[in-house]
Amino acid sequence: MNSADTLDDEDTFKILVATDIHLGFMEKDAVRGNDTFVTLDEILRLAQENEVDFILLGGDLFHENKPSRKTLHTCLELLRKYCMGDRPVQFEILSDQSVNFGFSKFPWVNYQDGNLNISIPVFSVHGNHDDPTGADALCALDILSCAGLVNHFGRSMSVEKIDISPILLRKGSTKIALYGLGSIPDERLYRMFVNKQVTMLRPKEEENSWFNLFVIHQNRSRHGASNYIPEQFLDDFIDLVIWGHEHECKIAPTKNEQQLFYVSQPGSSVVTSLSPGEAVKKHVGLLRIKGRKMNMQKIPLKTVRQFFIEDIVLADHPNIFNPNSLKVTQAIQNFCLEKVEEMLENAERERLGNPRQPEKPLIRLRVDYTGGFEPFSVLRFSQKFVDRIANPKDVIHFFRHREQKEKTGEEINFGELITKPPSEGPTIRVEDLVKQYFQTAEKKLQLSLLTERGMGEAVQEFVDKEEKDAIEELVKYQLEKTQRFLKERHIDAAEDKIDEEVRHFRESRKKNTTEEEEEVREAMSRARAHRAQSEDLSSEFSVDDLASIDMAEQMANDSDDSISATSNKGRGRGRGRRGGRGQNSAARGGARRGRAFKSARQQPTRSATSKNYSE
Amino acid sequence: MNSADTLDDEDTFKILVATDIHLGFMEKDAVRGNDTFVTLDEILRLAQENEVDFILLGGDLFHENKPSRKTLHTCLELLRKYCMGDRPVQFEILSDQSVNFGFSKFPWVNYQDGNLNISIPVFSVHGNHDDPTGADALCALDILSCAGLVNHFGRSMSVEKIDISPILLRKGSTKIALYGLGSIPDERLYRMFVNKQVTMLRPKEEENSWFNLFVIHQNRSRHGASNYIPEQFLDDFIDLVIWGHEHECKIAPTKNEQQLFYVSQPGSSVVTSLSPGEAVKKHVGLLRIKGRKMNMQKIPLKTVRQFFIEDIVLADHPNIFNPNSLKVTQAIQNFCLEKVEEMLENAERERLGNPRQPEKPLIRLRVDYTGGFEPFSVLRFSQKFVDRIANPKDVIHFFRHREQKEKTGEEINFGELITKPPSEGPTIRVEDLVKQYFQTAEKKLQLSLLTERGMGEAVQEFVDKEEKDAIEELVKYQLEKTQRFLKERHIDAAEDKIDEEVRHFRESRKKNTTEEEEEVREAMSRARAHRAQSEDLSSEFSVDDLASIDMAEQMANDSDDSISATSNKGRGRGRGRRGGRGQNSAARGGARRGRAFKSARQQPTRSATSKNYSE
Repeated sequence: MNSADTLDDEDTFKILVATDIHLGFMEKDAVRGNDTFVTLDEILRLAQENEVDFILLGGDLFHENKPSRKTLHTCLELLRKYCMGDRPVQFEILSDQSVNFGFSKFPWVNYQDGNLNISIPVFSVHGNHDDPTGADALCALDILSCAGLVNHFGRSMSVEKIDISPILLRKGSTKIALYGLGSIPDERLYRMFVNKQVTMLRPKEEENSWFNLFVIHQNRSRHGASNYIPEQFLDDFIDLVIWGHEHECKIAPTKNEQQLFYVSQPGSSVVTSLSPGEAVKKHVGLLRIKGRKMNMQKIPLKTVRQFFIEDIVLADHPNIFNPNSLKVTQAIQNFCLEKVEEMLENAERERLGNPRQPEKPLIRLRVDYTGGFEPFSVLRFSQKFVDRIANPKDVIHFFRHREQKEKTGEEINFGELITKPPSEGPTIRVEDLVKQYFQTAEKKLQLSLLTERGMGEAVQEFVDKEEKDAIEELVKYQLEKTQRFLKERHIDAAEDKIDEEVRHFRESRKKNTTEEEEEVREAMSRARAHRAQSEDLSSEFSVDDLASIDMAEQMANDSDDSISATSNKGRGRGRGRRGGRGQNSAARGGARRGRAFKSARQQPTRSATSKNYSE
Repeated sequence: MNSADTLDDEDTFKILVATDIHLGFMEKDAVRGNDTFVTLDEILRLAQENEVDFILLGGDLFHENKPSRKTLHTCLELLRKYCMGDRPVQFEILSDQSVNFGFSKFPWVNYQDGNLNISIPVFSVHGNHDDPTGADALCALDILSCAGLVNHFGRSMSVEKIDISPILLRKGSTKIALYGLGSIPDERLYRMFVNKQVTMLRPKEEENSWFNLFVIHQNRSRHGASNYIPEQFLDDFIDLVIWGHEHECKIAPTKNEQQLFYVSQPGSSVVTSLSPGEAVKKHVGLLRIKGRKMNMQKIPLKTVRQFFIEDIVLADHPNIFNPNSLKVTQAIQNFCLEKVEEMLENAERERLGNPRQPEKPLIRLRVDYTGGFEPFSVLRFSQKFVDRIANPKDVIHFFRHREQKEKTGEEINFGELITKPPSEGPTIRVEDLVKQYFQTAEKKLQLSLLTERGMGEAVQEFVDKEEKDAIEELVKYQLEKTQRFLKERHIDAAEDKIDEEVRHFRESRKKNTTEEEEEVREAMSRARAHRAQSEDLSSEFSVDDLASIDMAEQMANDSDDSISATSNKGRGRGRGRRGGRGQNSAARGGARRGRAFKSARQQPTRSATSKNYSE
């Protein structure tokens, strides 16, 4: 199919990489309802056509924590259609699968199950949209896993420590250590990294012969002090990080700041918010790994709905828009009409080259009306485009530069927060709202038995994940815990004594954030025993004695669609027709790999992040 | 395992029959939460141990229309565990599978799918609890079907006509025509039977060589004039009906009134209401069919929670209970305590023989306090049994003989209807409430655009099946329909004219019940095109020329657990140790099978119920 094929041999892993497919997003929408299903079909077909060894997903396969029947049904249908068949799987797994898939009822890789004829195994971590919830700590991926169609890995729900055991894969002479970490609230994971509670286990034998691939689903760009995972937190020995969660396609691997490893951010395969990052063309990746060399071939997705976004600042055009003119609103409207028509023309021109793309594009015109202008009625404007735009109702988005307002005390205006347009400005979490509410509430409304954090998380579970019992479970758990405390201290005296003890108990809990967090997690999920068990199993590695190939440079690849990771961030990377990109690659420092690790069998090898990261 | 095994040969179908498993019933209950999962495990294990050819389910595998993740997960787990494997399936399918499984994305039987290693195929119709809903008309079974673990058949959503195409199975010389009809609202199906809109297609060749097995999930006992399906409605040529929906175990086949066919009512495998029918011991059946002979072996379920129910009529014991005595309440309470203790002792004694049964039984004592008695506080009574009874909160049920009340006009007391105790008296349907509400509402509250039936069905879907969009879809549909009507009549004049036309349109619709019903169904589900298509396919039968064995009598079977269907309803049938039951069987009338049917290929053979049934 393309020149890269000549590189494919019995030592080369071919992996289709995708993240954030968000199956079921807007499934009720008459126009956009099928978009995610069509694109999953495209992605799986690409995997089949390219004869990949496996598919690697970086989380958020589903948009909803509890996907609709239709979404689940379609997903099963497509996986069964494309990932089952007679083509043999060409790689083997060397690690202990009962550790890798310890949470599953069928703790082994699906293609080795004698009852299932799998041609393309899918490996996936869960994202924040489809993470495990409820007393049974199951997620939507587990349904697919139980049906034998997906290998869900990278699960770790402990708040005390995370040991990431890799899946060890071998194809010919190439060995991949595949690490995964399903989505965890960013602040929690941040703190665990800082407290050295995150450990990546390494095979004890021939440590340097492995290509270390890590799949993570977290905020990559900074949202507040600790609401993201800085790349510096990650272990040096990693070769490539597949970073899920971020929707902007930056799939070409780039070196991180310290020049120690590469990061590829595939981005979502559907536009879920009308923001600039989503307007970047969507791709999946065909990742080739041979020995310790890699190559990421970008594959443009052809079924993704077009999305064009433009900004207008009215105040920048004093010659056209005079805020004092009577006809200014008409002028603005005409200008916007022209602008949208222009964007539609662009869309049509581009679509000519791609008949598989849905007809109606997504269009967004952001109009900054700071400076005394008035927004016009969007309703009538929208109606003009009902038949030509997929999102007629929100084509125009008026906004003003935010003026710094004086703080009016501690009061929260819930109404204001809720009517805030989505995908603009920092996201406000339900959890924080609840916390703020109870902290600023009148004395008599303040919580005495329950904790704000607990309530916050429970409400969040309830809202985000339709987890109907989350609040009830928390209340029950914390009530029982308080009763236990009182019993232990033999408080069965007068009522005021009890009040005092409860207050005391509460204060003591507040001081210990970790403990409280732990408690909340426990309340949310009673399935901890099972989890702890599989976490404590030490991974047994039986690695064959293969020559370790040093990863000196990227594989050369001059095909049109392909981008090789470059060695310097600063060096411009082109898209499309540019030859000889393989020469851009550079040797990676060999010294850091000289670190001595203990045998994983005697004592799990740890390489906990030792860097001090400070904000 | 038992003497029946000697009968098993290459011509004998062995079928595990079960209905109303209600997976997920009370899954949040701390005591009873796992009951349905444990029993499904038992049932599937029985199928495996008895090496059945297939499992036949009569609907309501799931309790909720939208089963929880845990329920779905457990179901997939158990089906994958027990129904996949290397044991070869010994029968073949002769009918056109694309007709039998036309609604499925994979319209063929699962065991013939090269990618799935099925050892026990499961065939199931859907029940009223897990029937198809929503715009995509999917049901929970379809998830299992899409995952390749269940063969969902007997789907027919048309309100105009139902053609039931059998799955034609052959094992050696035995041939079964398996008919199925998933749950349909009783009134609708009743009317369709009366209007001869239900047709059972028959294989054109060697019509009489088939064992005709029909699985249905409807009310069997009469609930109101047309809120059930009289056995007389069913076709004469049927040999055995497996009747789902009714929870009382009456699994031993009994002849229907006309002595024309047998009916087996397996009953539920879990107690979902504390009523006498549910106290009958639960069984599944091992159905053997050889030629046109059959035998139903009762298999008692050992994991089903015990349930004991007793009634006390206080007025029947004037010596013990004097309503005028000051201590009467205490006396009643003591009497009830003793009674419950007695029932608990019975339970324990019985449980000794069955260690797999859950420890805490279900106990219900119904106390008729008619005659001036007062109920005592159930709360304190319940607390005494928290550790010994699975349902401590509703052990005691006080009731009085209902006195005939004078009708107070047309008003409905919603409060009264809602606080009515469940599982007592006739069920009130949401649909009827809505209808009644709008019909008796003040003029200004009456519906003008929407129909009461439509609103009723939409509200019912919303309530019963958590179908969030049901109401919206109906409103949208009926609004569009009205607009279309007005457009066609070019009504764009004055407002009062429109009102009049709308009224006219509405009246016209009211007159045609069938049309309205059709319309409502259409609004509920837009997937009709697909359905209509598969309904119109004429079934192609290619039946081998096997000798037709007349079904003269039941197979002899003297094993302990086995009950052979007897020929006369009046003749007493024993349970347990009684030999020579095979001799009870009698020849079935051969004349009715002499009916001449047309070739199914030229014109689908119809045997629509020709009896006139009148109430």
